[in-house]
Amino acid sequence: MRQIEQDELESLATGASILGSGGGGAPYIFQINLQNLYADGVRVKLMDPSDLADDDLVAVVTMMGSPLVGQERLADAEIGAKALRAMEDFLGRRFSAVMTMEVGGGNAFQPLLVGAVTGLPVVDADAMGRAFPEAQMNSFAIADLPMSPLSIADIRDNEIVVTRAASWKWLERLSRKVCAELGSVAATCKAPRTGAEVKAYAIPNTTSQAIALGQEVRRARAAHEDPVAAALVAAKGKLLFRGKVADVQRQATEGFLRGTTRVEGIGDDRGAVFDVAFQNEFAVGWRDGKIVVTTPDLICLLDTESGEAIGTESLRYGQRVSVVALPASPVLRTPKGIAHVGPRAFGHDTDYITVFEEQGQ
Amino acid sequence: MRQIEQDELESLATGASILGSGGGGAPYIFQINLQNLYADGVRVKLMDPSDLADDDLVAVVTMMGSPLVGQERLADAEIGAKALRAMEDFLGRRFSAVMTMEVGGGNAFQPLLVGAVTGLPVVDADAMGRAFPEAQMNSFAIADLPMSPLSIADIRDNEIVVTRAASWKWLERLSRKVCAELGSVAATCKAPRTGAEVKAYAIPNTTSQAIALGQEVRRARAAHEDPVAAALVAAKGKLLFRGKVADVQRQATEGFLRGTTRVEGIGDDRGAVFDVAFQNEFAVGWRDGKIVVTTPDLICLLDTESGEAIGTESLRYGQRVSVVALPASPVLRTPKGIAHVGPRAFGHDTDYITVFEEQGQ
Repeated sequence: MRQIEQDELESLATGASILGSGGGGAPYIFQINLQNLYADGVRVKLMDPSDLADDDLVAVVTMMGSPLVGQERLADAEIGAKALRAMEDFLGRRFSAVMTMEVGGGNAFQPLLVGAVTGLPVVDADAMGRAFPEAQMNSFAIADLPMSPLSIADIRDNEIVVTRAASWKWLERLSRKVCAELGSVAATCKAPRTGAEVKAYAIPNTTSQAIALGQEVRRARAAHEDPVAAALVAAKGKLLFRGKVADVQRQATEGFLRGTTRVEGIGDDRGAVFDVAFQNEFAVGWRDGKIVVTTPDLICLLDTESGEAIGTESLRYGQRVSVVALPASPVLRTPKGIAHVGPRAFGHDTDYITVFEEQGQ
Repeated sequence: MRQIEQDELESLATGASILGSGGGGAPYIFQINLQNLYADGVRVKLMDPSDLADDDLVAVVTMMGSPLVGQERLADAEIGAKALRAMEDFLGRRFSAVMTMEVGGGNAFQPLLVGAVTGLPVVDADAMGRAFPEAQMNSFAIADLPMSPLSIADIRDNEIVVTRAASWKWLERLSRKVCAELGSVAATCKAPRTGAEVKAYAIPNTTSQAIALGQEVRRARAAHEDPVAAALVAAKGKLLFRGKVADVQRQATEGFLRGTTRVEGIGDDRGAVFDVAFQNEFAVGWRDGKIVVTTPDLICLLDTESGEAIGTESLRYGQRVSVVALPASPVLRTPKGIAHVGPRAFGHDTDYITVFEEQGQ
């Protein structure tokens, strides 16, 4: 167990944005909220999952909703705590720690905010190692753990518990409809996990990895080195393409931000084009019309100068970007993992294509 | 406590349809389901609310959704029991009896179905004495009793508990969205009531009254007497108009069936027209363009020959109808009651106009 220091918050924001793979929402407002709490002297504790007792109960907390709405409506730490308390009331048990479902994007911060107002330690782990758009796209679902109960709370005084769901898809449908009715931003506390479950099925140390990745990008930038190259070393990734955003097709439909973007090559990639399709997160990449990479590989568009991630909601014409791929957690690359988070789960009729084959699993 | 006999089921269907005031959904499928259970030897017990102990816990059960969908998708007694069990699991307490929220229409039968499969007695009471379209339109809401928790269950394996709601309107919005997502038919178990609350704030003996009303209509019909006149005597109502349905404007919008119908007079009313506006239930009546009656008076259109109620979803050109009014429960006619269920609550800019003024409260 260690304390997360103030300076690490900005590194976490940078690292979590990159791991968001274009989605997960911008961490900026979460980070500002947490910095305000830090300014008041609050500190959050980070614990290694191996320090959990088997029968500890861990709250898995997220903010849910549209990334675009999330930029306009403030996320309040108290809302997350309300969802957690609603779950405790339902279970008749208290949580001993809190963790995130997805380390990619703003939700890397949600357990820190909840930890800051409840005093609970944050488990250094998540269930994606990145961001994904749907409820069944995580390592707990891949392991067939129970998906319910799930609590939802808003800034008013509404609290809903989905006590049973017929499937992950039903859980997704029901919670998304409730979230939309609440104004497209709501806090959730997902199915509680025992310490034993977290140790067996979560993806460990992803919060630390996000902080380290952000630290390295910031260090390189301050030293006038190439921050994209630094990110690739820190996350063991590969550069796929360098260019300029030439086109963005984007639609907010059924609670998702769907679309494609085209990058026209510059430098070594002059004359080539790289297309990327997304559903909140980037899912498939084509170089000159041929698929070269798919989810669950993390496809990320980084600002070539700063190394900061560009979210699918922030893409615009003329941005100088580096398209990179980072390796997905091994559990996502198993056949069962591919069924949950591979390209077909995003509606693309192709097998999983990775740029990390030679690294094996 | 007495047993509800097989022959009373058809009388309850007839009486509850009339008290539905055009809404509440047709009881037919509920009745058939219950008759099947009766054919297997099951019997349901009806208890007077005065026999409840103050700390008894009463489950308030309904089927929720669109009346039109309700006619096409079977209501299963087990679904209602699932909603009740979900509430018991949430509360960590068992119910000792079950009751309906609205005696008008199909939901008069819902506690009987749940009672049949759980063995729980049915309290002879409801919270409307009729049918109403929205969650806050009932005597418990008028008495400012807590509105949550509310459980929702479907034919699959989905269960949702709204553990807190910011207002009755929010409870309505959230439960209706969930219901729509579940296919527009779902069973609910509304906020549990203590025996003391039921005795103080429910409308007593409405199930018995519905049975007696139906029995009288059926008796008159069998005796070749005027069944409409018999209904008026049994329910202390008034005949407002006799005629033929000349027009129906009807729209299914936002989960409600809204519209108007025009009746052209025959007999004593020849040359006059009577218009009625509805939102699931009939809400306002105009004779030759002048408002003569509004909710919460029960405005009912009865088939002139059979005395059976005609639901707003079943209105069609050429039907011979008698427009009648039945007196509303006193609690609905208080200023607070009118605020919840008067014409303005249905979007009509008029004060409450009753045809029962001289009867007082």
